[in-house]
Amino acid sequence: MKRVAFIGGGSFGTALAAMLGNKGLDVSIWDRKKSVVDNINKFRHNEKYLKNCVIPDCVTAYEDIQKAVSGSDIVVLAVPSHVIREMSVKISSYLRKDQIIVSIAKGIEEKTFKRLSQVIKDEIPYNTVVVLSGPSHAEEVAVNIPTAVVASSEDIEAAKIVQDVFMTDSFRIYTNDDLIGVEIGGAVKNIIALAAGVLDGLGYGDNAKAALMTRGMSEIVRIGVKLGGKQETFYGLTGMGDLIVTCTSMHSRNRRAGILIGQGNSMEYACEKVGMVVEGIKACKAFYELKEERNVSMPITDSLYNVLFNNKEPRECVYKLMTRDKKDEIY
Amino acid sequence: MKRVAFIGGGSFGTALAAMLGNKGLDVSIWDRKKSVVDNINKFRHNEKYLKNCVIPDCVTAYEDIQKAVSGSDIVVLAVPSHVIREMSVKISSYLRKDQIIVSIAKGIEEKTFKRLSQVIKDEIPYNTVVVLSGPSHAEEVAVNIPTAVVASSEDIEAAKIVQDVFMTDSFRIYTNDDLIGVEIGGAVKNIIALAAGVLDGLGYGDNAKAALMTRGMSEIVRIGVKLGGKQETFYGLTGMGDLIVTCTSMHSRNRRAGILIGQGNSMEYACEKVGMVVEGIKACKAFYELKEERNVSMPITDSLYNVLFNNKEPRECVYKLMTRDKKDEIY
Repeated sequence: MKRVAFIGGGSFGTALAAMLGNKGLDVSIWDRKKSVVDNINKFRHNEKYLKNCVIPDCVTAYEDIQKAVSGSDIVVLAVPSHVIREMSVKISSYLRKDQIIVSIAKGIEEKTFKRLSQVIKDEIPYNTVVVLSGPSHAEEVAVNIPTAVVASSEDIEAAKIVQDVFMTDSFRIYTNDDLIGVEIGGAVKNIIALAAGVLDGLGYGDNAKAALMTRGMSEIVRIGVKLGGKQETFYGLTGMGDLIVTCTSMHSRNRRAGILIGQGNSMEYACEKVGMVVEGIKACKAFYELKEERNVSMPITDSLYNVLFNNKEPRECVYKLMTRDKKDEIY
Repeated sequence: MKRVAFIGGGSFGTALAAMLGNKGLDVSIWDRKKSVVDNINKFRHNEKYLKNCVIPDCVTAYEDIQKAVSGSDIVVLAVPSHVIREMSVKISSYLRKDQIIVSIAKGIEEKTFKRLSQVIKDEIPYNTVVVLSGPSHAEEVAVNIPTAVVASSEDIEAAKIVQDVFMTDSFRIYTNDDLIGVEIGGAVKNIIALAAGVLDGLGYGDNAKAALMTRGMSEIVRIGVKLGGKQETFYGLTGMGDLIVTCTSMHSRNRRAGILIGQGNSMEYACEKVGMVVEGIKACKAFYELKEERNVSMPITDSLYNVLFNNKEPRECVYKLMTRDKKDEIY
């Protein structure tokens, strides 16, 4: 029987913690907000991040990060991408080498362009890292709606342990050893989802969004293969699957932020309104710079970058994409 | 300036006819229903199939099929897949060899397993056939919402003519010479969309549907490549793009029929309620038989076939898919 610690009481972390608690595991959650910790311990709820979930008694929340981590077999880093390094540093001195680190954030680090498992490895070099990724909105995982995801690692045995520990009748886990493909797909899909939200905000329909997602998928594959990922991974759950759910679900913060931007609001207003971190904005900036460096064509990322950071009109960008020269489909 | 005839006043045919009319082309529509013909000619509407569209004056509807066809440069077969052969026979004696036939239906012929362009070629052997396909719900094309599709033919010059004639600022057309891939992708995606609708009808969420669509995409590629299509075509607008729009839009009849079946209604009731042809049901039957013959694994098609034709419980099929043995993602 494994003990699992969650660093961060956000929506997905909480949903997984409750799921494992319901499986009978001993689970701890650390969160920097006292209100979240108290809410979980006293009322068995996470009012701020995951309203629809009752958290079972075997889940305990802590304000003290050492207490949360100690004695666990698996430590899940459940914080946004931009604080992964900081939190890795923070927990590193409390870890044993045999604890598996699980990463569930999606993004790449600004400036270094490192994948999050690489960032973790920088700070926690002796522990094995497993990435859990795929179409899995927390709000649905929390109520046991069927979900299928992937556990990926350079150490496939560690991925199999995570598969064993986390799998339930309604949470199916596949393993995949293409860690690069899993992490890059998960990061880039947020850019396309944000752009899809912009289209929705402009009032365009299902045809246009399906076209955007299809062409967006090509961008994911192009940059992903260039960075060393496998094409079949991008067309799997962590690429295409996660792209679809992020582009179509109202649970998606990236999509909701995009809708607000498409409706004419500023990026700042959209982020404030969504109230949680919008990974697609950070990813757009990072991948815009990375694709310039690597010379990869990513026209949707270009357009979104111009809307977000250069005050370009979204409607004008769509018109430009629609009225380019006639061409063949296979690019 | 081209003259275009539409055989069939259904929703997509009418939307395209109106679009070409607005472009200033001379357009005719034949329909077997006098009420549709009168409605178009007298009231500039197609009340039955496409409520939200005003049909311009340069579109004329006919009850006489010869009158509709004669003098046209392009003849669009805009009828459901199961009457393509019958209608091809019907118009064949009125055609000149230089008229291009455009096919917009999606499916394969029962028993013969022929693609629709092959069926047309059987009956109209001397004319060039171009297939127009992609994520393009009629309701959106009718109101000029941006849409991107593909014109495909063994004769790429003919595809380019269709691209020229049909392209507008909001209806973008790519060419693609992989006719097999375009037609097979368009046919199989209706099976997956019907299954996605069943999931919706069962009350499952976005995570499950994204997983189904991703695994469904693999089925499309597996059978499609076996039948001679190119993998990149299936991941393009006519495969993945059309799959996405059909699985997520309420404009999709296949999805709506699936929802009704998932809610516990019979296939017959669902078809009656949707009121138009549900291509996914026919496709499911045909591809179930074809994949057995060709020995291709299509588990979603199997499950749907069992729900539709063997009275299997949809919820039980989902449970079985979720609780199979643990495995690696790359199948």
